[in-house]
Amino acid sequence: MAAIRIAVIGMGKIARDQHLPSIASNADFDLVASVSPRDPGVDGIANFTSLDALLAEGPAIDAIALCTPPQVRYELASMALARRVHVFLEKPPGATLAEVDALEHQAAETGTTLFAGWHSRFAAGVAPAKAWLADKRIERVSIVWREDVRVWHPGQAWIWEPGGLGVFDPGINALSIATEILPQPFFLTSATLSTPANRAAPIAADLAFRTAAGAPMTMDLDWRQTGPQSWDIVVETDAGTLSLAKGGAVLTLPSGTVHNDDEEYPGLYTRFAALVRDGRSDVDTTPFTLVADAFLRGTRNSVEAFDD
Amino acid sequence: MAAIRIAVIGMGKIARDQHLPSIASNADFDLVASVSPRDPGVDGIANFTSLDALLAEGPAIDAIALCTPPQVRYELASMALARRVHVFLEKPPGATLAEVDALEHQAAETGTTLFAGWHSRFAAGVAPAKAWLADKRIERVSIVWREDVRVWHPGQAWIWEPGGLGVFDPGINALSIATEILPQPFFLTSATLSTPANRAAPIAADLAFRTAAGAPMTMDLDWRQTGPQSWDIVVETDAGTLSLAKGGAVLTLPSGTVHNDDEEYPGLYTRFAALVRDGRSDVDTTPFTLVADAFLRGTRNSVEAFDD
Repeated sequence: MAAIRIAVIGMGKIARDQHLPSIASNADFDLVASVSPRDPGVDGIANFTSLDALLAEGPAIDAIALCTPPQVRYELASMALARRVHVFLEKPPGATLAEVDALEHQAAETGTTLFAGWHSRFAAGVAPAKAWLADKRIERVSIVWREDVRVWHPGQAWIWEPGGLGVFDPGINALSIATEILPQPFFLTSATLSTPANRAAPIAADLAFRTAAGAPMTMDLDWRQTGPQSWDIVVETDAGTLSLAKGGAVLTLPSGTVHNDDEEYPGLYTRFAALVRDGRSDVDTTPFTLVADAFLRGTRNSVEAFDD
Repeated sequence: MAAIRIAVIGMGKIARDQHLPSIASNADFDLVASVSPRDPGVDGIANFTSLDALLAEGPAIDAIALCTPPQVRYELASMALARRVHVFLEKPPGATLAEVDALEHQAAETGTTLFAGWHSRFAAGVAPAKAWLADKRIERVSIVWREDVRVWHPGQAWIWEPGGLGVFDPGINALSIATEILPQPFFLTSATLSTPANRAAPIAADLAFRTAAGAPMTMDLDWRQTGPQSWDIVVETDAGTLSLAKGGAVLTLPSGTVHNDDEEYPGLYTRFAALVRDGRSDVDTTPFTLVADAFLRGTRNSVEAFDD
């Protein structure tokens, strides 16, 4: 079967760190172009300064991977879908829920694949965690997601703007795992969002959720963590405690610990290829809905100005 | 067919102004109880201080109308659905989107009717506006929703709390009309939310949307309007301008103006009865999604303290 000719749009940190290596190692894809308004792209690949220019003058493409900031993603995705070009959306899938709904409708109408990728769901421990929890009674869930924004998002001004999500940019990864592994839906009961005086998006958040069966959940997000970083989900059940550490890579069950290699972005591309081959879309907005609910219902604190 | 035995939960302003008269005038319903923790209810109807007490000790009921503030609605609705009691949710249907999704699943699982009511959709001009717009090209939409919070929400502390929505409590009525009458979905492109220094919820908001086809929309919400009130939606099309005034009651088309009587809450109860008889639910969360998007993506301003 012919390889899927793909272009990467938005050649920032995540594109270079993750998308390019995953595409290079996947025989289902052939990287044929990139779009980057501000740099020359990568050696040997045609680079364009806009998606418009690529579609008008570039090589034929079957798919794009959209790695731009979320605030500009709708226009680009919609332009691609209108040309029947399949779209892989980095997380979060947009700046608003309603625009993602509109893209999903457009994909269905044009018979084109739209994939809202949640990379953390492809972490090594997630699938076995989901399988183990399937028949357990959930008693309590604790999520701690604390990292150093200066290390992970250096100079990314967009992330502090409205729609950039602030500390929910990493926090949505935890929610993408929790919504995948827990056997019940859950929803927010209270939230406090702390926003630096000089920024529009929160740097920290304390959240409480409950599952539909009534089990309490807490979530502690902070971008001011120096030293060791924390990306941990602990689920207490009637059969003992499950722990997912290092963002989902390390799973500990009552029977012991399993530590597997990071396969997140390769897993995403395997899934995207399968969706394109099958002519299907996968647009789960549940993690994004929970974030919108935190902004909708959360209490806001102003905290000390923060510069990176 | 036997009347639907209904209880009204939350005997505040909206219950007394709208729900009780609409139930009294609808032969499909028989009001058998009320729940009000703080007052004696109404003459001749058994009143209970909690839904728990009503379910344990009260007369048999088939349905409830939930007129409490949104922050406590999930627990009550879930308790009712678990007993296979049909639920009519006042707008907004909850304090978060995810909890409404959970209720919708619970209603489906228990075979019980859940109705998320949007009263403004039953305003006299809405159905003919929708019919007229169905085959028009939308060029521009302007929504102006300005009212005096002291007149319409006197002393309602909950409305200023997180989850109470502030000026989006009336604003969501405009969005419930716009999502009903426009032939295309639309989504937020920018928003500025103005919140009094002593409150948690906005008193005013300026929003911009666009339709999936690219037509611009503006929305001007303000709760500080004294004198004449404004609840207007103007839609410019390729066949002239449509105007909906007085919250949807007065429709003006290029061919003239139609002014009909307010039938909003009677219309809601007619619809609720049909849903219960047919064993179906109707839970459209589109207007609520657009509000969540405004909180998610909006820029925030702090404005002068406001006391009512």
